[in-house]
Amino acid sequence: MEYNFSDKMNGLKPSAIREILKYSSQPGMIPLSAGNPAPEAFPAKELAEICSRLMLEKSVQILQYGITEGYTPLREHMKKYLADKYRVRGENDEVLITGGGQQVMELSAKCFCNEGDVILVEEPSFIGSLNSFRSLGAKLIGIPVTSDGIDVDELERVLASTDRIKLLYTIATYQNPTGVTMSLEKRKKVYELAQRYDIMIVEDNPYGDLYYDGRFMPPIKTLDTDGRVIYAGSFSKVISPGLRVGYACANAAVIAKMTVAKQGEDVQNANLPQMMCYEFMTGYDYEAHLERLRALYTKKAALCTSLIDKYLVPKGVTYFDVRGGLFAWCKLPEGVDMNEYCLRGVKEYKVAVVPGTAFLSDPSAKTDSFRINFSTPTDEALEKGIKTLGEMLS
Amino acid sequence: MEYNFSDKMNGLKPSAIREILKYSSQPGMIPLSAGNPAPEAFPAKELAEICSRLMLEKSVQILQYGITEGYTPLREHMKKYLADKYRVRGENDEVLITGGGQQVMELSAKCFCNEGDVILVEEPSFIGSLNSFRSLGAKLIGIPVTSDGIDVDELERVLASTDRIKLLYTIATYQNPTGVTMSLEKRKKVYELAQRYDIMIVEDNPYGDLYYDGRFMPPIKTLDTDGRVIYAGSFSKVISPGLRVGYACANAAVIAKMTVAKQGEDVQNANLPQMMCYEFMTGYDYEAHLERLRALYTKKAALCTSLIDKYLVPKGVTYFDVRGGLFAWCKLPEGVDMNEYCLRGVKEYKVAVVPGTAFLSDPSAKTDSFRINFSTPTDEALEKGIKTLGEMLS
Repeated sequence: MEYNFSDKMNGLKPSAIREILKYSSQPGMIPLSAGNPAPEAFPAKELAEICSRLMLEKSVQILQYGITEGYTPLREHMKKYLADKYRVRGENDEVLITGGGQQVMELSAKCFCNEGDVILVEEPSFIGSLNSFRSLGAKLIGIPVTSDGIDVDELERVLASTDRIKLLYTIATYQNPTGVTMSLEKRKKVYELAQRYDIMIVEDNPYGDLYYDGRFMPPIKTLDTDGRVIYAGSFSKVISPGLRVGYACANAAVIAKMTVAKQGEDVQNANLPQMMCYEFMTGYDYEAHLERLRALYTKKAALCTSLIDKYLVPKGVTYFDVRGGLFAWCKLPEGVDMNEYCLRGVKEYKVAVVPGTAFLSDPSAKTDSFRINFSTPTDEALEKGIKTLGEMLS
Repeated sequence: MEYNFSDKMNGLKPSAIREILKYSSQPGMIPLSAGNPAPEAFPAKELAEICSRLMLEKSVQILQYGITEGYTPLREHMKKYLADKYRVRGENDEVLITGGGQQVMELSAKCFCNEGDVILVEEPSFIGSLNSFRSLGAKLIGIPVTSDGIDVDELERVLASTDRIKLLYTIATYQNPTGVTMSLEKRKKVYELAQRYDIMIVEDNPYGDLYYDGRFMPPIKTLDTDGRVIYAGSFSKVISPGLRVGYACANAAVIAKMTVAKQGEDVQNANLPQMMCYEFMTGYDYEAHLERLRALYTKKAALCTSLIDKYLVPKGVTYFDVRGGLFAWCKLPEGVDMNEYCLRGVKEYKVAVVPGTAFLSDPSAKTDSFRINFSTPTDEALEKGIKTLGEMLS
């Protein structure tokens, strides 16, 4: 039979970039396209210990229904963690545990947007969030990202001239895919504009702990005097993505609404992964673990950029500084067809990167850039992959 | 600040019934209001063994990203299980692992309904699913349930006279909250009507394995020659609700669309709970486990109905037969204010049941019925609770 899908989902068709991503899993492929943590980054031994102990001591609590808001000790701990380390001190804020950071974006759009309402997004931005917004029928408008974050003049122009804007979505720190971090000055301006035009900010911060230059950048949420920032945190990049534990921190009234929405979506997160995150954060030296991750990725990031300097820059490629996160954003020299280049990479050269069009609010628009991930491949694969990408430009 | 929530979520306010449910967690309260499995129903020892072994042998697979569709061995096993045991033999069907059965309802509505489209629901029906549909802006129309399932004449009348109907939502077997099972004749008629009016059926079957009269009822999905039934299964009532593992079985094109929607919601289920369900189903005697659950709940159901016969029926209460599932649906005699009765129960008598209004498509409508759950309370609590409910009618 012919299915009559909803308008919002009908628009979400497998796109040209899926053809490329499809090749990424082929044997022998060098995967510079993923966003996976390095396998050696997982605290596997500690989590195995925790898991065995929890199932012996708290099996009924693990197996029975919990509450939608999430495992209470973890929520309380995250409030304290955000206050102490991130300087997020919203007195009226609450925490909701979610299915990875991703669910925060989906719940935010569901709670604030009617179909046809507008969400402003950085251009380029994370495809997962863009599709999440699309799946609720929101209209996306992209605001360009420069080397110090979103273009605030363009943001102001769009805010002044567009109806039905409800949310601004930003990955202010080590943005995916560009890797850039919004300056403090711009953060203040963005918050001020959100106030002036009365919109909410959804701040997605999966990489905040992964800084490689020794500088921790406080989130926009620290500026939030009104309760208009929904902060999305995640354990995916710092503990494990397979546990699917993320969290929202926002004003209690917003969290209450998001909790009702989550109840209708999946009732609650699985208990065991939440409890594993809590026990790992509180029963082990979590800061030492983060230091270990930063050391690991600092090395990988340095290797990646030195390889780009060696193999790609001489061919005319430019890229943004990599000071944190998991990605490098490379711009091809004029005259090279980016989509064709990426497709040739997977088809003929067995090296997979993500074409920049995947990250655009309008995927049929043009961009010369592509994304390299350096956390997943081994050092050898990274060298071979980037060398190949350079050869393809000869 | 004042938040400007979306129309669909703005409608989802905490209702009068929440006041009653709020009291349910007070100390000393007899909880006949939950839907929790009995703690002794959990295969805790087996799951602890599995969990420890998996974390030692497959930690990287558990902690790394998996695919949105779900853990492949579990999906393949569920296809075979549904074919062998449930006689679901859709050649073009696929399986998607979801965050409990609940997520199947949410994804179905998201994929098929624009805001303002209509979903037909049994009246009364499961509040979680109703709120899930509401949270996507769907309009609900209730079709009454009688002792052998949905009123097919009324269903036909509504189908013939209403625009924009996209889905029919049914818990055909041991319906929540009424406990009734749709007859085979009605199942055929419902499917035929869905064909004639070209709508999809969402069949929610969390209790299918929990039959207490020795009779297994094949789902409507077995009649599905067109690919118009989305079948929602769940491990919540037969393994553990805290693991949050459910699944959709539907035509591959529908599953593909739901997979895109799930990707935008939470990327994927956590790996470990999926793997635990798979290992438990395949490494242990799963049928013997189900037999043990049926024996446990058959006893509890029999106790519950004998207590209703003893304490409530003499006071004019009537109820539907309990042949499976976890609930008894009781109708108060004329002249008793049901909401006031339930509120008095929690406030003055420390016994919590769910007022029937919670299960209506329009919660401001009237009903004389309330729901008793018999899986959560101990035998003693069940006796004390139902005895008290009887005394309240004196």
